[in-house]
Amino acid sequence: MTKRHAAICPIAGFLNIFGDAWSWLVVRESFYGATRFSEYQRNTGIAKNVLSDRLKKLVDAGILSKHDVGERGSRYAYRLTEKGESLGTVLVAMVQWSNDQLFEPGEEPVQLVERDSGEPLLPLTPVDRQGRTLRWRDVIAVPGPGAPEMERKPRSSRTDEPS
Amino acid sequence: MTKRHAAICPIAGFLNIFGDAWSWLVVRESFYGATRFSEYQRNTGIAKNVLSDRLKKLVDAGILSKHDVGERGSRYAYRLTEKGESLGTVLVAMVQWSNDQLFEPGEEPVQLVERDSGEPLLPLTPVDRQGRTLRWRDVIAVPGPGAPEMERKPRSSRTDEPS
Repeated sequence: MTKRHAAICPIAGFLNIFGDAWSWLVVRESFYGATRFSEYQRNTGIAKNVLSDRLKKLVDAGILSKHDVGERGSRYAYRLTEKGESLGTVLVAMVQWSNDQLFEPGEEPVQLVERDSGEPLLPLTPVDRQGRTLRWRDVIAVPGPGAPEMERKPRSSRTDEPS
Repeated sequence: MTKRHAAICPIAGFLNIFGDAWSWLVVRESFYGATRFSEYQRNTGIAKNVLSDRLKKLVDAGILSKHDVGERGSRYAYRLTEKGESLGTVLVAMVQWSNDQLFEPGEEPVQLVERDSGEPLLPLTPVDRQGRTLRWRDVIAVPGPGAPEMERKPRSSRTDEPS
């Protein structure tokens, strides 16, 4: 298992929840509508003990909520919470990157569209408060209000070019 | 280690490269400007053997390129390729989610801004070809041109509401 990362960093915070492929596959299935243990298992091929562990972690992290539905054999249902639903942005960014970079045009296994119109989604684009479209390379991370004073300053660009 | 996922799915394809927190921390450091083995190691605390493995995997996946810089003791430099640079979208989506969901307002450890103006980035928003802003909940995944015929159809929404 991956160790927890101690540094205060939003990526590290993210990876403490999602530093494992199985967690993402469970979240993916939740977005596709899975709610029952048996559905997650069937759709991902994940081992039962691993699935139990990841479902518990996702519930503990507030991504999924667990509901006792009082039925024999398949008693609990898992649903995305609001916090879980807000992962849609990350999933869309992953799908767009993967479609672009891992599949040839015309070979994409899924497409992202608007539910009612079927209109394809454009690539996600960074926009500032003036509504100006930015280039990804011009988006940088700088220390935020919660940055520890001793934290090394994030570097805004690569300073040493390839020799 | 996480098993490779056989299903043709952009998320699974993505997770075959990034199904591990260390890979992401290496990519994060690359965006912050790290190029040398010793820098990745110092900034992430990752064990040498794990770091070697992840750097090799990221080079094999075309995310990083490896350059022999011919210096004693620290001979190779690693740089993000264009494919690697295009992961910026995913990192930004992760940072925005993490800042929103894991930190209180005013406690965010990093902020995303435009390099020159320092203007904060707005939350990423889905837009269709007509330039209309969509709601995340209305963005769905449907089978793409490369979907196998036998592939189960992604469900577009949860059909069974909590009882």
